Amino acid sequence: MVNIHDVARKAQVSVATVSRVLNKSSAVSFSTKIRVEQAITELNYEPSTLGRNLRKLESRLLLVLIPSISNPFYTDVIKGIEDTAINLDYNILLCQTNSNPKRESIYFNLIKNHLADGIISMDPTVNKRNLMDLAEKHPIIQCSEYDIDGSIAYTTINNELAAYHAIRYLIKIGHKKIALINSDEKFLYARERRQGYERALKEFGIELNLSWVYHAESLGFEGGQQAMRQLLNHPNRPTAVFAVSDILAIGALNEIHTNGLHIPNDIALVGFDNISFSTMTHPTLTTISQPMFKMGCIAAKMIINKIQGKKVESIILDHDLVIREST
Amino acid sequence: MVNIHDVARKAQVSVATVSRVLNKSSAVSFSTKIRVEQAITELNYEPSTLGRNLRKLESRLLLVLIPSISNPFYTDVIKGIEDTAINLDYNILLCQTNSNPKRESIYFNLIKNHLADGIISMDPTVNKRNLMDLAEKHPIIQCSEYDIDGSIAYTTINNELAAYHAIRYLIKIGHKKIALINSDEKFLYARERRQGYERALKEFGIELNLSWVYHAESLGFEGGQQAMRQLLNHPNRPTAVFAVSDILAIGALNEIHTNGLHIPNDIALVGFDNISFSTMTHPTLTTISQPMFKMGCIAAKMIINKIQGKKVESIILDHDLVIREST
Repeated sequence: MVNIHDVARKAQVSVATVSRVLNKSSAVSFSTKIRVEQAITELNYEPSTLGRNLRKLESRLLLVLIPSISNPFYTDVIKGIEDTAINLDYNILLCQTNSNPKRESIYFNLIKNHLADGIISMDPTVNKRNLMDLAEKHPIIQCSEYDIDGSIAYTTINNELAAYHAIRYLIKIGHKKIALINSDEKFLYARERRQGYERALKEFGIELNLSWVYHAESLGFEGGQQAMRQLLNHPNRPTAVFAVSDILAIGALNEIHTNGLHIPNDIALVGFDNISFSTMTHPTLTTISQPMFKMGCIAAKMIINKIQGKKVESIILDHDLVIREST
Repeated sequence: MVNIHDVARKAQVSVATVSRVLNKSSAVSFSTKIRVEQAITELNYEPSTLGRNLRKLESRLLLVLIPSISNPFYTDVIKGIEDTAINLDYNILLCQTNSNPKRESIYFNLIKNHLADGIISMDPTVNKRNLMDLAEKHPIIQCSEYDIDGSIAYTTINNELAAYHAIRYLIKIGHKKIALINSDEKFLYARERRQGYERALKEFGIELNLSWVYHAESLGFEGGQQAMRQLLNHPNRPTAVFAVSDILAIGALNEIHTNGLHIPNDIALVGFDNISFSTMTHPTLTTISQPMFKMGCIAAKMIINKIQGKKVESIILDHDLVIREST
């Protein structure tokens, strides 16, 4: 394999000079720079990224920590992150943590050792103390999930308000018996959306019925199906259901169909996220639209600004209620 | 930050001895080992993974190259890869290449520099020559996509035979006017599935109508919608459609509904992959089931065997035709 010494020999300069050219140092004359670049091209030399990066302490790699890639919500955010990062000459490595602190710490080591320049964390269950410690020395931002009393900048939507809007809308079209299919309340978004649900009920004088609040056992379709099965067996069946993700809502939709009931006549249904599949269901799904792609773009810009030593502030994005056939 | 010298000082041994303990060398007495480990614990010392790994040339990281994470086919394969890798004490980094050779080469550098131990490539558009060169010195296997005349071991299904089975089934239930919604034929699977489609037609004496062979412009739902729109406008409308992915089939299903036609009475529909969405559509989708999770498990076992210097052979997995309501 061609190495830096071969390039130096061919260009008739020192190894240090080749290195200076590679690192775009200004202390090289124009003619020398051209000679070195020609030698690199002719020899088809690929500089060792590792060697170069360790010197410059720059890898141009960003780590993106996600709980799981199977939710289209994350894939759409990641599209935004990638689009922006690549335009700014950064690449991303996706790290599925599955909420496992041991795996997180392996990914944290990559940044401690300067193999990555920064972390965008979308993982709510990350070890808080470790993340804060890491953030003191390394660029980190949070996306979607964040720590309320932490010092790490984040971008997200107002989950409490979004859920409040969904429930207020259901109440305004005549529903009083509204169930909630929530996900695990270890997620900040789940806790906030529940708060929004409760606030809207309270505001309209509707009593909270805890037996209509269901925590799905999984984040997949089955989670929504199981939850809906319980709600359909409830002696006092709700007339509307708000699920905190489209995936859960689509599972619920399927279970309602299986039981021969009509949406929205028998049960109205509202999801959350506006994933592309929510327009493919029958009926199409009313949902809260999160600006997933935009959130990803902003997260990428924030982390790159942070890496470049700029001041970075948290950003709350707007949501929309998208009304379709399921309500 | 605590470093190896602090540990050596505290344990009253040489830096080389600490290093030996970290690398689990047997050339250290039991009492010394205990003393060093105590010093590590008391000082809360975190050895630099980089330093350690470069010496051992082992990172316990696998790279998984995928064209895009938005297709649930890939996410299910990745679940299998992760499950197996983590059980064997490996972590994975996901690299979306978006079929961009420049990005591939950045990821290739990670393995050249021993920052990862091996690559599972699911990317068909990878620069063949580069991949072959890399495979001479580094552990690489291919998953789903592979090079027919290459020397890299792979795991996949028999795509030609699977498509042949789908079309033979449609012919047997009475269809003669069968359209194909294919993806870009840069993908090997797309070329092979088309061959299976043509073989079945030929075997049953049905003439190939090229105007029923459509290449979707994208791999998302819209790709299937667009393709179906064309086919519905065809003067001689087909009575059945075989789409080479469930995502394309679900897009087509939606377009058929939008036009007020009935599935399967007006048009029968067969997909490919058996993603979980395919049971959530109305009607549910007849499809070819790929053993995605299993394929991932096998790919992970293959690459780890390869890393450990064992002989690795290609593995072709079985597929199934899953008959549901859309046919």
